Amino acid sequence: MVKVGIFGANGKMGREIIANLEGSGAVLAGAYERDPASIADLKDAVKTSLKELFSSCDVVIDFSVAAASLELINYARTNPKALVIGTTGLGDQGENLINLASNSMPILQATNMSLGVAVLNKLSKLASKALEDFDIEICEMHHRRKVDSPSGTALTLATSVAQARNLDLNKVRVSGRDGQVGARSKDEIAVMSLRGGDIVGRHTVGFYNDGEFIELNHTATSRATFAKGAIKAAIWLANKEPKRYSIDDCLGL
Amino acid sequence: MVKVGIFGANGKMGREIIANLEGSGAVLAGAYERDPASIADLKDAVKTSLKELFSSCDVVIDFSVAAASLELINYARTNPKALVIGTTGLGDQGENLINLASNSMPILQATNMSLGVAVLNKLSKLASKALEDFDIEICEMHHRRKVDSPSGTALTLATSVAQARNLDLNKVRVSGRDGQVGARSKDEIAVMSLRGGDIVGRHTVGFYNDGEFIELNHTATSRATFAKGAIKAAIWLANKEPKRYSIDDCLGL
Amino acid sequence: MVKVGIFGANGKMGREIIANLEGSGAVLAGAYERDPASIADLKDAVKTSLKELFSSCDVVIDFSVAAASLELINYARTNPKALVIGTTGLGDQGENLINLASNSMPILQATNMSLGVAVLNKLSKLASKALEDFDIEICEMHHRRKVDSPSGTALTLATSVAQARNLDLNKVRVSGRDGQVGARSKDEIAVMSLRGGDIVGRHTVGFYNDGEFIELNHTATSRATFAKGAIKAAIWLANKEPKRYSIDDCLGL
Amino acid sequence: MVKVGIFGANGKMGREIIANLEGSGAVLAGAYERDPASIADLKDAVKTSLKELFSSCDVVIDFSVAAASLELINYARTNPKALVIGTTGLGDQGENLINLASNSMPILQATNMSLGVAVLNKLSKLASKALEDFDIEICEMHHRRKVDSPSGTALTLATSVAQARNLDLNKVRVSGRDGQVGARSKDEIAVMSLRGGDIVGRHTVGFYNDGEFIELNHTATSRATFAKGAIKAAIWLANKEPKRYSIDDCLGL
Repeated sequence: MVKVGIFGANGKMGREIIANLEGSGAVLAGAYERDPASIADLKDAVKTSLKELFSSCDVVIDFSVAAASLELINYARTNPKALVIGTTGLGDQGENLINLASNSMPILQATNMSLGVAVLNKLSKLASKALEDFDIEICEMHHRRKVDSPSGTALTLATSVAQARNLDLNKVRVSGRDGQVGARSKDEIAVMSLRGGDIVGRHTVGFYNDGEFIELNHTATSRATFAKGAIKAAIWLANKEPKRYSIDDCLGL
Repeated sequence: MVKVGIFGANGKMGREIIANLEGSGAVLAGAYERDPASIADLKDAVKTSLKELFSSCDVVIDFSVAAASLELINYARTNPKALVIGTTGLGDQGENLINLASNSMPILQATNMSLGVAVLNKLSKLASKALEDFDIEICEMHHRRKVDSPSGTALTLATSVAQARNLDLNKVRVSGRDGQVGARSKDEIAVMSLRGGDIVGRHTVGFYNDGEFIELNHTATSRATFAKGAIKAAIWLANKEPKRYSIDDCLGL
Repeated sequence: MVKVGIFGANGKMGREIIANLEGSGAVLAGAYERDPASIADLKDAVKTSLKELFSSCDVVIDFSVAAASLELINYARTNPKALVIGTTGLGDQGENLINLASNSMPILQATNMSLGVAVLNKLSKLASKALEDFDIEICEMHHRRKVDSPSGTALTLATSVAQARNLDLNKVRVSGRDGQVGARSKDEIAVMSLRGGDIVGRHTVGFYNDGEFIELNHTATSRATFAKGAIKAAIWLANKEPKRYSIDDCLGL
Repeated sequence: MVKVGIFGANGKMGREIIANLEGSGAVLAGAYERDPASIADLKDAVKTSLKELFSSCDVVIDFSVAAASLELINYARTNPKALVIGTTGLGDQGENLINLASNSMPILQATNMSLGVAVLNKLSKLASKALEDFDIEICEMHHRRKVDSPSGTALTLATSVAQARNLDLNKVRVSGRDGQVGARSKDEIAVMSLRGGDIVGRHTVGFYNDGEFIELNHTATSRATFAKGAIKAAIWLANKEPKRYSIDDCLGL
């Protein structure tokens, strides 16, 4: 049983991860939150210092905020511990810090911890190359409250399929079609965004040719997806050699 | 067995209709084309005048060009015969002529003879009303050579669901989303157009709410769709009273 | 604001309904549970007798168990109150009791309170009639823990489309195909059950013909669906005349 | 421009291939049919002996019948020429002959020439391994006249995903669910067959877990798919070294 410590234990993702540990092969050994009172319900798992947190577990999962995350990684440099980083917006400073830290510990960072999305991304790259004559179109759908379009994940997928064909996404991306737009050009890639209801996230990468087409779809049905991905990554990472890893490494993709 | 006459028998749709008569309950009794030689393969069915064509059959199906179609309807005013009109672009003159002609014969006109699309349109209207709190989004896909977006059928569907909510489509239609567009407004209806491969036509009208959604999809797999719709309409129309009918009447929708 | 009383307030659905009242147009006025301590968190809303519960509200929503539900309806016969019944397995006794009760109060009973499913059912019936030449196939998907196949909702949908064609579902239903089964017969209706993951519920009713097909899909993304349906039904029912109503009446379908 | 010879030029697939050569990078150089009169419309391309056929082209595509195909391969053993074999039912004799022939010429054999299906198969294997905790279900749909279920392609896909998990398909395959079948077992793989209309072929391989799922879909919209696959394979094979190749080799999968 892998002992997991959660950094940012009272955050949305922290709580989600704790709720998904049962039966995962990992167990909650430590939990850290700036305000320990907010996680009093976690009882013995509550740790009030990084030192205590690190002593309690085999691997730390971090879903906090950028500043706290940077502190955490910095501390780990002199107190090595396997780290799964899900916090976003770490910037260049974070990039550098992670690279430095990876000399003394195993560290895995990803902006989307869903295993399914990682697999979809991998499959889409393969299909993009293997089906070079096929037209590519991407369609994503999210809940009505999402403010940005297309989704970050859709842009990641679009970048992947474009790069697989040596195309610059910025030059070939289309985000809408209206009026006498003319026939579709060979290289364009539409990334269309639908919004409505409470859809957690649905992405379809389509490859279309005369006579046949392929559509690769990923649907997230709950935010637990991301928690499960992080836990699986943590278990996998716990006893690895010091190095920087990606979700693809974890999956053996 | 209903005897059918085809006006514009060598056109793409004329040929398609003839190819789909077998087993339909209708039989080819007459065929007219400006250049009779082009339909010599139809043998005895070839008629060289409207008079001959009309005598041969119970109902005439017209997929020709606007000018020829107007002549046909005009001729029918003094020589009544059940008429199915699939020719597009007849304009106001055609509208008026059809209304006048409908005093002396049954006449059915539609720009899309697909029974499936007519049903989808009907169902979408019902759903739009019954699910008034649901967000509506429409997504259509056609082959890479289509030059206009969205498709005429998608606009018809969008108009139907908007009218069912007393909304003006021009004020609520969205054809793309890119950047920080903000949360979805209650009434907006995206009509998104995907293009690729040789897709004959696929339309999805979606209704999304917290906790559930409905997606109504129509897919045309061949142009035979439109031929079959026209034949069914012709059989239905053959012995009707003089009046102007729609595809909805034919289907009992 | 409609005042709602919940009978079975600590049940899965009772709790779900309470969680979905905010912003619905209804407010929690009363809550009843055999063990009042289990709903102590509901504070002033807790009622310890049917008399108190009925006095507190305009309409009662019942998601309990059969025996308790029968008691409730019986009590209501002499103390009329609008009733929404979502409890299942009431049997013939329940049927009769509901009919009797409907003489003195408005009462709405349904085994599936999802508005979307009611609409899908209605649309499927219409399509079945309008597209009489189309082959019908139904496919449903639910989570891996579901023990019965096909789902009750799939069977309801299948019954509806069969009846619309004067077919007896028991004679035309197919639940699997394996081996040299021969060409599809005209009237057969496959109802196929997929199982996997945590899918709340997905039903697709398909209508297939040469050249085109229609697929009508409903997807439940959370159990809140059923709660919202019950609340909407309660608001609608609150000031109706004594009569037995269905979800279709509520939706104006 | 690769010069192609068609063996079985008047067959359904032979004609389909000829119709799809334009713009493909290959040109019709020779056509052979037992009854040359049946392909008189192909004019100068008509060859009346294997010798003439082989001299005319860089690669021969064979979609004939088993006996004729075996003769062709046998002839090629002493008169080497790149061969694309799409004929099915060659049995063990054919297997051996192809292996022998591959010593003196490049030869590619496949029972499904669709590039898309080959890619779907590859992607499904990868996903099956990468997503080992996900439940797998396969759903295929074909036209109402198909007599066997599931489709050969569905069985190939099912075999692939089962092997990727070291499962024996015969032990885990399910072809229907009806009644109180109990919760889904971990390893079972349903392969469900829908039939209706004129669907050329649609296959969906689904991977389902708590919180997310992936569905990989291939849809054939016309038989041209298989023709295009054969032509691409022929162009690729024309100047290869003697060896036996698969569609996967051709695609670089």
